[in-house]
Amino acid sequence: MPVTDNLLTNNDSYAANFSDGDLAMPPSKNVAIVACMDARLMVSDFLGIENGEAHIIRNAGGIVNQETLRSLTISTHLLGTREILVINHTDCGMLTFTDDQLRQKLHEHRGGPVDPIPFYSFSDIEANVRWQVEKIRNYDLLPSGIPVRGFIYDVKSGKLNEVT
Amino acid sequence: MPVTDNLLTNNDSYAANFSDGDLAMPPSKNVAIVACMDARLMVSDFLGIENGEAHIIRNAGGIVNQETLRSLTISTHLLGTREILVINHTDCGMLTFTDDQLRQKLHEHRGGPVDPIPFYSFSDIEANVRWQVEKIRNYDLLPSGIPVRGFIYDVKSGKLNEVT
Repeated sequence: MPVTDNLLTNNDSYAANFSDGDLAMPPSKNVAIVACMDARLMVSDFLGIENGEAHIIRNAGGIVNQETLRSLTISTHLLGTREILVINHTDCGMLTFTDDQLRQKLHEHRGGPVDPIPFYSFSDIEANVRWQVEKIRNYDLLPSGIPVRGFIYDVKSGKLNEVT
Repeated sequence: MPVTDNLLTNNDSYAANFSDGDLAMPPSKNVAIVACMDARLMVSDFLGIENGEAHIIRNAGGIVNQETLRSLTISTHLLGTREILVINHTDCGMLTFTDDQLRQKLHEHRGGPVDPIPFYSFSDIEANVRWQVEKIRNYDLLPSGIPVRGFIYDVKSGKLNEVT
């Protein structure tokens, strides 16, 4: 049985006990979070976020690029978020390859050349977090005065450590 | 007190009770989920996903663009995911504006012209889900034979309805 079908069965139980149908669209805590897609990041759980409280944006690496800035522009200008957290984590998959290596793997998969693709692999988590935070702070289409703070989540301890 | 500080206090409690420190990097259910960033989508909760089981990619609208395909390429080729779900939802913020309207708002915010930016606003949720699914199926750098299924999450009922 496909995993997807198991997840749909899980959803039946969730819907049967659902009682949050009246929440408003804007995040009630006015906060947006950018985090990695990693399976060990239970973002709502480790931040104690309840239904309706926060926008959560996730991608491979917890990267801030034009697409992330698109989501943050909508989040802030249209839905009122006023604080932003950027969360990378220990033991990230993005530390295990280089963009060139993945491109070579895709070349072999396709059996032919592949255009260069920015995969945003990195080798220094702290430096990566600082750079993502900086990109948000420097983006002139976001409302000014929004605090942006960066963190590394430790997958061994469940602890979030701020990068200052 | 900033909301961020409240979230850090919540994290202290989470870490104090944390017992999942030995999970492996690849998602144990070999599944990747693309969903909207909306605050009312408790993705892990409504799919019954536990720590370590699934990659979760989120952005404004649950859109599949080059950035989403970047994350899915890493997810499938490097971390073994073999099923993909795309999840949009009822009452999405992306239904409430057009790209031109948001661009005009940003023009006013900046006090000057703004380059055209693709915001991926949409007016038909079902058609939008089908299109995102199609983009993944058509992307030739992903491994072949990966099932991709699309859903609309109902924020009033907690129920996931498949778009076929």
